[in-house]
Amino acid sequence: MHRFHHVTPAVCCCSKTRSGEKYTDPFNLGWRDLKGLYEDIRKELFISTTELKEMCEYYFDGKGKAFRPIIVVLMARACNIHHNNSRNVQASQRAIALIAEMIHTASLVHDDVIDDASSRRGKHTVNKIWGEKKAVLAGDLILSAASIALARIGNTTVVSILTQVIEDLVRGEFLQLGSKENENERFAHYLEKTFKKTASLIANSCKAVSVLGCPDPVVHEIAYQYGKNVGLAFQLIDDVLDFTSCSDRMGKPTSADLKLGLATGPVLFACQQFPEMNAMIMRRFSSPGDVDRARQYVLQSDGVQQTTYLAQRYCREAVREISKLRPSPERDALIQLSEIVLTRDK
Amino acid sequence: MHRFHHVTPAVCCCSKTRSGEKYTDPFNLGWRDLKGLYEDIRKELFISTTELKEMCEYYFDGKGKAFRPIIVVLMARACNIHHNNSRNVQASQRAIALIAEMIHTASLVHDDVIDDASSRRGKHTVNKIWGEKKAVLAGDLILSAASIALARIGNTTVVSILTQVIEDLVRGEFLQLGSKENENERFAHYLEKTFKKTASLIANSCKAVSVLGCPDPVVHEIAYQYGKNVGLAFQLIDDVLDFTSCSDRMGKPTSADLKLGLATGPVLFACQQFPEMNAMIMRRFSSPGDVDRARQYVLQSDGVQQTTYLAQRYCREAVREISKLRPSPERDALIQLSEIVLTRDK
Repeated sequence: MHRFHHVTPAVCCCSKTRSGEKYTDPFNLGWRDLKGLYEDIRKELFISTTELKEMCEYYFDGKGKAFRPIIVVLMARACNIHHNNSRNVQASQRAIALIAEMIHTASLVHDDVIDDASSRRGKHTVNKIWGEKKAVLAGDLILSAASIALARIGNTTVVSILTQVIEDLVRGEFLQLGSKENENERFAHYLEKTFKKTASLIANSCKAVSVLGCPDPVVHEIAYQYGKNVGLAFQLIDDVLDFTSCSDRMGKPTSADLKLGLATGPVLFACQQFPEMNAMIMRRFSSPGDVDRARQYVLQSDGVQQTTYLAQRYCREAVREISKLRPSPERDALIQLSEIVLTRDK
Repeated sequence: MHRFHHVTPAVCCCSKTRSGEKYTDPFNLGWRDLKGLYEDIRKELFISTTELKEMCEYYFDGKGKAFRPIIVVLMARACNIHHNNSRNVQASQRAIALIAEMIHTASLVHDDVIDDASSRRGKHTVNKIWGEKKAVLAGDLILSAASIALARIGNTTVVSILTQVIEDLVRGEFLQLGSKENENERFAHYLEKTFKKTASLIANSCKAVSVLGCPDPVVHEIAYQYGKNVGLAFQLIDDVLDFTSCSDRMGKPTSADLKLGLATGPVLFACQQFPEMNAMIMRRFSSPGDVDRARQYVLQSDGVQQTTYLAQRYCREAVREISKLRPSPERDALIQLSEIVLTRDK
């Protein structure tokens, strides 16, 4: 397994994808178009009030994976090349990369308030340092700065595509907050929440850059489907890592989902083998010892493996979709990215 | 003094404005275009999750003053008539009325979280009933529904105008939260906060409908200036009412601003007469007895009167601006509205 950010060259720079084509490291390829990403985001947030500025910049410290911006610029290039062999990323497409990262971050800030989370990415959360109230405002401000940047692009289709994401994020968080559904609905509910909270932003950002780069609706659908499937796989693996990774590596405590009362993929699969987990799920792991006991059940079951299989299926679907585009280094980097999503360990 | 919602006919339906023209009640005139306003807003918020739906609809109960939607549709008609004598409000202009009310409400929901407020409009606040966390989400959801409705209008200038408002609201709330400025900056700071928290939404909504109704930038500026000045006057009177009205009538506790640590217009004017108030302002009325003592100082001073004078000046400026438009019942209703703002007692 290789780490997310530091891909070993032997595996990733000169080897071959399943389709047999050469590719280069997606992060290297993507970063060509993302120089100054965080400086630019901080400019969008230009604020005279020192404390607010400090809070809003706290997460845009350049230490994030920039997973979403990377996908966005690679998709932009892949679509541009597909359409007319253009080698440039348009300014409006690069703006989508910034906006996607800003929307993502704003939603993290509010989610951390709602979950009362105290650490993320190895740092204290905004709510932990500055308090809940200021964190609400900081999230609002990042979101409004993103909306202003979005409006500035001046394409109403793109505005519609990305405002839908903001709504999905909120509804996804609410679904997560209130889950009391019965056993049969649980898995569908989990996937819906996963789409809304994670995949919608990636799918719709991919679609937005495809709309800006190419007039063909078939290409927009390919971009959307790639983003959706990679986004679902990404979150499923995230849910697996909450059971298999140590907290030092993740930068946030593990079994964090159980502690929040959440039954993710590994738990839902484990529950099929160990129906006694049902009661714990229904009470959201709130009785003493529930979190540890549930964790043990999951690790004894094949919940981790089944969730990983499901993620693999989504990735295969993503690869199938993106392979419809004309070959390019960026297209192949997107193919490789779907494999990195599966094998990351943080 | 007449009440805001029930204007006595003798004063408001058949009398004359300063400019000597007949006018009719702005609320009656405005409501012609606002039938079904709250039903339509609730449709925008269409949500399957019962609790979230209930929370989001809580404030759109049809009992609000609809002050912003009324101004917006009257301005739309006044601009349309000015431009080409058109007697219709466009669907996109009516949409701005909904969006303005939604943005306003979303900001109230988050402000109440931040201020830890427990009542508003004579009801418990969302945070009081459902808790802070769900209130954060409800506010986010109303705001994202507003953004989607805004994107649907499909005019990028209008999108830019109204996303600026969202940013102003957040920055205004932050200014209010952190005010520790020195005596000289205090008044300018108060007016800036008042513009951002109240006047920006009214000014920019007025501008947005003028952009949709008329291509002339001179008209856009008139609409903006009218909204800005009426908005400033509206908030100054609100700040006065916090000292002069009883809590039963306001639907929220009075001296509420002092209790939040806020020095509004009446306090700032009073402080010029009674410099001993300075220390209380600096400690945000946090010592025992500060709130009552400050209230007494204000009522002994001419702070209420001075603030009212200032509001009158803004209203005169609003009337001066709107009078540049071609005469119409709607234009005259806007003139009258500025007088109602000054004389309202709730």
